[in-house]
Amino acid sequence: MIPHDTHLQIGSLLFEGLDQIDLTGPFEVLSRIPNATYRIYGRNSDPVRDVKGLRLTPDAAIADAPQLDVLHVPGGFGQEALMEDAEVLGWIAQQAAGARSIFSVCTGALLCGAAGLLKGRRATTHWASFHLLPLFGAIPVNQRVVVDGNWVFAAGVTAGIDGALRLAAELRGDDAAKTIQLYMAYAPEPPFDSGTPETAPASILQHTRQSVAGITAQREATARRVAARLGIAVPEAAPR
Amino acid sequence: MIPHDTHLQIGSLLFEGLDQIDLTGPFEVLSRIPNATYRIYGRNSDPVRDVKGLRLTPDAAIADAPQLDVLHVPGGFGQEALMEDAEVLGWIAQQAAGARSIFSVCTGALLCGAAGLLKGRRATTHWASFHLLPLFGAIPVNQRVVVDGNWVFAAGVTAGIDGALRLAAELRGDDAAKTIQLYMAYAPEPPFDSGTPETAPASILQHTRQSVAGITAQREATARRVAARLGIAVPEAAPR
Repeated sequence: MIPHDTHLQIGSLLFEGLDQIDLTGPFEVLSRIPNATYRIYGRNSDPVRDVKGLRLTPDAAIADAPQLDVLHVPGGFGQEALMEDAEVLGWIAQQAAGARSIFSVCTGALLCGAAGLLKGRRATTHWASFHLLPLFGAIPVNQRVVVDGNWVFAAGVTAGIDGALRLAAELRGDDAAKTIQLYMAYAPEPPFDSGTPETAPASILQHTRQSVAGITAQREATARRVAARLGIAVPEAAPR
Repeated sequence: MIPHDTHLQIGSLLFEGLDQIDLTGPFEVLSRIPNATYRIYGRNSDPVRDVKGLRLTPDAAIADAPQLDVLHVPGGFGQEALMEDAEVLGWIAQQAAGARSIFSVCTGALLCGAAGLLKGRRATTHWASFHLLPLFGAIPVNQRVVVDGNWVFAAGVTAGIDGALRLAAELRGDDAAKTIQLYMAYAPEPPFDSGTPETAPASILQHTRQSVAGITAQREATARRVAARLGIAVPEAAPR
């Protein structure tokens, strides 16, 4: 926990083709952390579209960001386009080096991996990309939220809400996180028990795996190139 | 359930000062409903800011919306500014009259009430505004998601995700909803049990009630004016 009178700079990375709720789920929490400035940083200040078309506009460009106390890296299909982008990866690495906390959501973990930040780190990501974590030198942990040192990893998509509340508690104490949780009425009641590969009906898991097979194969090919660049020894085929 | 080959027009209302996750939580679900067009409609096509500053841009203006099959009305503090806005209320009423489903999230219910749509209807809203529902002639039901005929009401803020999955099941069947749930990894694990007035620590409930006391009082005064306009007989003081 950080002293309450220490002002925090919190920033989220916004990019074309992200999965919007990787950002907007945590936004609901991060924007309500006491004594903090929260801003959204894009490659530049232009609006982007999420993978399903939601138009979001950054507050500023990454080049204009101060050193952040909390860096939030969301994921989504659009993460692929940044996996070999020296400017964005360099920004993530530089911010992470100076941040008090780094918060990765979903396949934002792959971006952090491409920035060379996951070596030897316990991490998680979306279930469809979970098998790729070793390609970045990470130790995969099949939990919804993984805390490793000053890193918080949230697994897929909506896990960002759970991760953000954990992060809020780490930063400002449990009562601050509970207050935000009450405001946002976060007492979820999913109508079905289909939110994980372990609980979803087999036919639905198969269908959903197929629907992301293309992007998953592309992510694996990219991850292997990144592993070579980072000098990480990888198995012939990623474990499933 | 609607025949799978019937294309659906789904639309969300976007307005200045909404609570962004009232829109973006459901967005994750509504944008993935099979054989549907999903668009965001604003007062006009200008970007708006949510109550905490997130910049969101509509796809089109409400005046340019077709008759929607599914109308989604989010809430948030900014709802207050629309409670006596004839153009927006008229649009909600007109769309609701022709829609197959109407989906209210959080204090979006107050907007639907001001549009005269809640008389005799079982409904819910954010816990801090729950006592205001009778002022619109509604029957308050203290559940996270309330389904009444072709209406789906989600209670506060993040309840929109649960409500949207229920709605997806109503529209396209359980398997479609389960598929979306798996993709978005919606198997929530809140780190605390502080998401409702019943479970939150008393001190946190008191603090949070105080922090929304101003807007709640304003909402009550507005609701009483609306009740008079709609000819709804109301008790002297709204029940708490």
